Amino acid sequence: MQRESALELADLGQQLRVDAVRAAAAANSGHPTSSMSAADLAAVLLARHLRYDFAQPDHPGNDRLIFSKGHASPLLYAMYRAVGVVDDEQLLTFRRRDSLLEGHPTPRLPWVDVATGSLGQGLPVGVGMALAGKRLEQAPYRVWVLSGDSEMAEGSVWEAVEHAAYEHLDNLTLIIDVNRLGQRGPTRHGWDLDAYARRLQAFGWHTIEIDGHDVDAVDAAFAEAASTVAQPTAIIARTHKGRGVARVEDQEGQHGKPLPDADAAIEELGGPRFVRVEVTPPPTARPRRTADGGHLELPRFDLGDSVATRDAYGQALAALGSAREDVVALDGEVGDSTRTEFFAKDHPERYFECYIAEQQLVAAAVGFQTRGYLPFASTFAAFLTRAHDFVRMAAVSRADINLVGSHAGVSIGQDGPSQMGLEDLAMFRSVHGSTVLYPCDANQTAQLVAAMAELEGVRYLRTGRGEAPVIYGPDEEFRPGGSKVLRSTDQDRLTVVAAGVTVHEALRAGALLDREGIAVRIIDLYSVKPVDADTLRAAAEATGCLVTVEDHRVEGGIGDAVAEAFADGRPVPRLVRLGVRDMPASASPEEQLHLAGIDAESIAAAVRLLVERAVVR
Amino acid sequence: MQRESALELADLGQQLRVDAVRAAAAANSGHPTSSMSAADLAAVLLARHLRYDFAQPDHPGNDRLIFSKGHASPLLYAMYRAVGVVDDEQLLTFRRRDSLLEGHPTPRLPWVDVATGSLGQGLPVGVGMALAGKRLEQAPYRVWVLSGDSEMAEGSVWEAVEHAAYEHLDNLTLIIDVNRLGQRGPTRHGWDLDAYARRLQAFGWHTIEIDGHDVDAVDAAFAEAASTVAQPTAIIARTHKGRGVARVEDQEGQHGKPLPDADAAIEELGGPRFVRVEVTPPPTARPRRTADGGHLELPRFDLGDSVATRDAYGQALAALGSAREDVVALDGEVGDSTRTEFFAKDHPERYFECYIAEQQLVAAAVGFQTRGYLPFASTFAAFLTRAHDFVRMAAVSRADINLVGSHAGVSIGQDGPSQMGLEDLAMFRSVHGSTVLYPCDANQTAQLVAAMAELEGVRYLRTGRGEAPVIYGPDEEFRPGGSKVLRSTDQDRLTVVAAGVTVHEALRAGALLDREGIAVRIIDLYSVKPVDADTLRAAAEATGCLVTVEDHRVEGGIGDAVAEAFADGRPVPRLVRLGVRDMPASASPEEQLHLAGIDAESIAAAVRLLVERAVVR
Repeated sequence: MQRESALELADLGQQLRVDAVRAAAAANSGHPTSSMSAADLAAVLLARHLRYDFAQPDHPGNDRLIFSKGHASPLLYAMYRAVGVVDDEQLLTFRRRDSLLEGHPTPRLPWVDVATGSLGQGLPVGVGMALAGKRLEQAPYRVWVLSGDSEMAEGSVWEAVEHAAYEHLDNLTLIIDVNRLGQRGPTRHGWDLDAYARRLQAFGWHTIEIDGHDVDAVDAAFAEAASTVAQPTAIIARTHKGRGVARVEDQEGQHGKPLPDADAAIEELGGPRFVRVEVTPPPTARPRRTADGGHLELPRFDLGDSVATRDAYGQALAALGSAREDVVALDGEVGDSTRTEFFAKDHPERYFECYIAEQQLVAAAVGFQTRGYLPFASTFAAFLTRAHDFVRMAAVSRADINLVGSHAGVSIGQDGPSQMGLEDLAMFRSVHGSTVLYPCDANQTAQLVAAMAELEGVRYLRTGRGEAPVIYGPDEEFRPGGSKVLRSTDQDRLTVVAAGVTVHEALRAGALLDREGIAVRIIDLYSVKPVDADTLRAAAEATGCLVTVEDHRVEGGIGDAVAEAFADGRPVPRLVRLGVRDMPASASPEEQLHLAGIDAESIAAAVRLLVERAVVR
Repeated sequence: MQRESALELADLGQQLRVDAVRAAAAANSGHPTSSMSAADLAAVLLARHLRYDFAQPDHPGNDRLIFSKGHASPLLYAMYRAVGVVDDEQLLTFRRRDSLLEGHPTPRLPWVDVATGSLGQGLPVGVGMALAGKRLEQAPYRVWVLSGDSEMAEGSVWEAVEHAAYEHLDNLTLIIDVNRLGQRGPTRHGWDLDAYARRLQAFGWHTIEIDGHDVDAVDAAFAEAASTVAQPTAIIARTHKGRGVARVEDQEGQHGKPLPDADAAIEELGGPRFVRVEVTPPPTARPRRTADGGHLELPRFDLGDSVATRDAYGQALAALGSAREDVVALDGEVGDSTRTEFFAKDHPERYFECYIAEQQLVAAAVGFQTRGYLPFASTFAAFLTRAHDFVRMAAVSRADINLVGSHAGVSIGQDGPSQMGLEDLAMFRSVHGSTVLYPCDANQTAQLVAAMAELEGVRYLRTGRGEAPVIYGPDEEFRPGGSKVLRSTDQDRLTVVAAGVTVHEALRAGALLDREGIAVRIIDLYSVKPVDADTLRAAAEATGCLVTVEDHRVEGGIGDAVAEAFADGRPVPRLVRLGVRDMPASASPEEQLHLAGIDAESIAAAVRLLVERAVVR
């Protein structure tokens, strides 16, 4: 159909409902009623407003469609059937093993940019895409986000609402499917569309309130959204959950389950049909940005100088930005602390201030990478915990993002525990496919920043606040999965495994112990994940005991990472772990390291004890 | 002073500034300029509106004061000096080792309810306190939250704004110190007070815009806030960062550092002084709720029945609520899934629906426990990652809260990875002082819910979606730090360590292997933290090899917890870990367990391989 009548649009809406019901019935699970409420919105968008070439999902002018209410996946897949990229047989594989049609959409499907299913994430990610389109690509695509009404309670949505209005993202449209029913019952605002409109307007959005089942009204609203200038638009649509099937329509207790009698429901919806939709092709647009490998001139630091790893990060990032035009930097209003200010100064057009909104910070990074950019998002390591769910979902999205957490550990000193990243290694190690790096000196930091850029998945770099001696030359090489043996003799009684600030403490401890005739091997485990199992195993074989020392809680960090290297059934060396076990308060950095038992004196004392008790050979 | 003139109030404001400057100068760090902007607000609050007996911090009628902008701690400590509970000598210990005056306030001070310093947390926690006062205690206290303007960008603030208005919390006042400057530069809205007012009004708040240095206006605003009915009030105060010292006032680059010349600044502020403030005493109020140990009648389940652990949790929680009136339950709009609906039905007055706002969910729990309640906050395990920073800060707050995550692991089946809690054990293990429990059957779940109630700190219970056989009798005892040896012979070739759903798979594997003449020991490690090191060590001694099997990522969970039991230098057994290594998609629960390599067949295959390769004895 080309210029569809309202009747034809309504018919398409019914087809989408039928297919959603059929998919859920075949799976015997899923969310048909949540799909049915948004079916008319989806029909009009698909037939009249979305500009997309389904044969070329990478076309740079394609609009973006994010189903933030990812549980309405049967509706999305019904749309794919209507445009002919999913056939009926495939539709009925919904939620089965090996099907691409997962319970919630993921980018295993070529038309899906990001995984959804954790509510309140679609709009924040859409803000990143819209920012890329407006401020970097100057591309004509629009970003359409379909949201449920329940998820408007998520704070992350309001971070995005604020950010989108502030940046005047008129290429972004939020469609709220106000079906008034959440999972367990009514939402806070029910069908009070004004409640949503008032809030969004106050933040600077253009709003349109409609009956989401009136296809003419829906059509007009989409047109108005597309023509609105300098403001993002929210279309607030009153809908009925389970629309079209009396037995479930607007009923509680019908969330997330197939309809009680699918055949009767399909009959009531007018029976199966196959209206094939011709989607408007995308406007022409420049090719999407791809990595362009200019010459990277990393900063070089002199041996023996004192440089904070956060400073080295900031300088390396600025250099990377000079070499590669696809690099973008984002920060959570702490660029003077994380040192992304260096990048901001050199590349202001590719620097994005996200203010104190860490969920939006990470979501924008995820949005940027869907457009081929290489984002580095930075804040204090402690505050990246605020975005844990976004990091988790970034992995489901197969997103390639770089996250950098500064002010790691008790060694920040006086500011106290609220500002100390002490759980960040645990968080990032548990993320699927992640890389976790923790440099101890400036040259190592610079090399690892360059290496991060070449990886896939979620990559985390942990930086420190205080200055640290430069112990590696600028041409020393480091790689994810590597480590450095800093001291090694045939007489080593055990091996100290350190990273970051504790490397320097371990070296001092080594010197102290030398005077007592106790030789220790020292490994700089700058790659926490993947971990250099070979080197650790060699050290285990040679010395029989590994002592890990980390400025992080004893759970989930370096101690656990080292143990994991021996989790394949081979003989395991003796293991001892030094790390943060108590709740710190304020104190100087040196005092903090001592109180936590991870400074040179504590390490030396622990080694002495192991020697005295004959735990080590 | 009793009824202070405006002049006297202004003078008190100057004293607070002077003391903030002095404290930061003594520490050579801290945030004096962020303190100076709010000093007049603090002076008027303290002298005229706060009702508090500093000699009795536990007085049930005391108002609550939360410094959400925790970095303004010098101002808070200056207030304590002004009321005479901190002397001058102590003030100057600010940020030193062993001082109670930490860089950011913590409840080590008796007048501080919760730690702050991670921005955007004060209001959400304040909502919990105000809810307790209004809906449970019927107590007359007011909750005052002092917030920065930068932190209004945090989504968690808007979760709280929505929640507070919806609950008509007229006992809650938000004071926004709009000094227009964040850490690295101007905020989004600068001095546009209307921008904040429009947003807050749209959510249903009463708002008052004032000059935050006009003590009469401040006084009138506090009075208006206190007399406003059925709405929370926000006082939006235009202030100058660094107010009173020309060299820093309203200047960029002056965040988080002592004043450049403290002596001159103190001079400019009129010199040191000591106005002692008499604070209005609190109104009378009923004693705060304390734990009252009624008879707890836990649900009992029959051996061999099939019951999901989430169902057992819901029933046990309802029973606990019947035995103890201090138990409150909170949920993130998924009570039909987490099964807190049972509690809601039995104890509607103590059930708090937080809708889909997990940060507010956990923050409200933290607020409730400050009032002596025993909160259980529940949602999907996956979505508790949304509140990671609140959990981290709950530990700094020394908060006693129970968090329960359902739908753990790949075993949820078709819904796919967005809904699977696969990183929750890693997250909770790394929290200071936490307890992490993961039951496998209904009676065990019930016992552990009862045990949780008696613990301190952050306690986490992980529940499953699917039904599981009841393998323990209702009188079997379980304790945090314990485990159960389910199978044990003298011929055991190795030990399988499982928890939750994998216990049943391990038992099946044991039966399979029996037929092949391979005996294995099986441990149910229901307490992941603290871990039962003694039992694990005995099994290690007896069998030489421990194979962990978990429905969680291989990092941070049971595999790591078991390794940690051997991190004290003693000989370590061989270790093998089975867990989730790939990104799951949709499939049935049985298929998921098989694809992840953690079902009975996979366990048996792994054991066979270890036997064949003579890895085990």
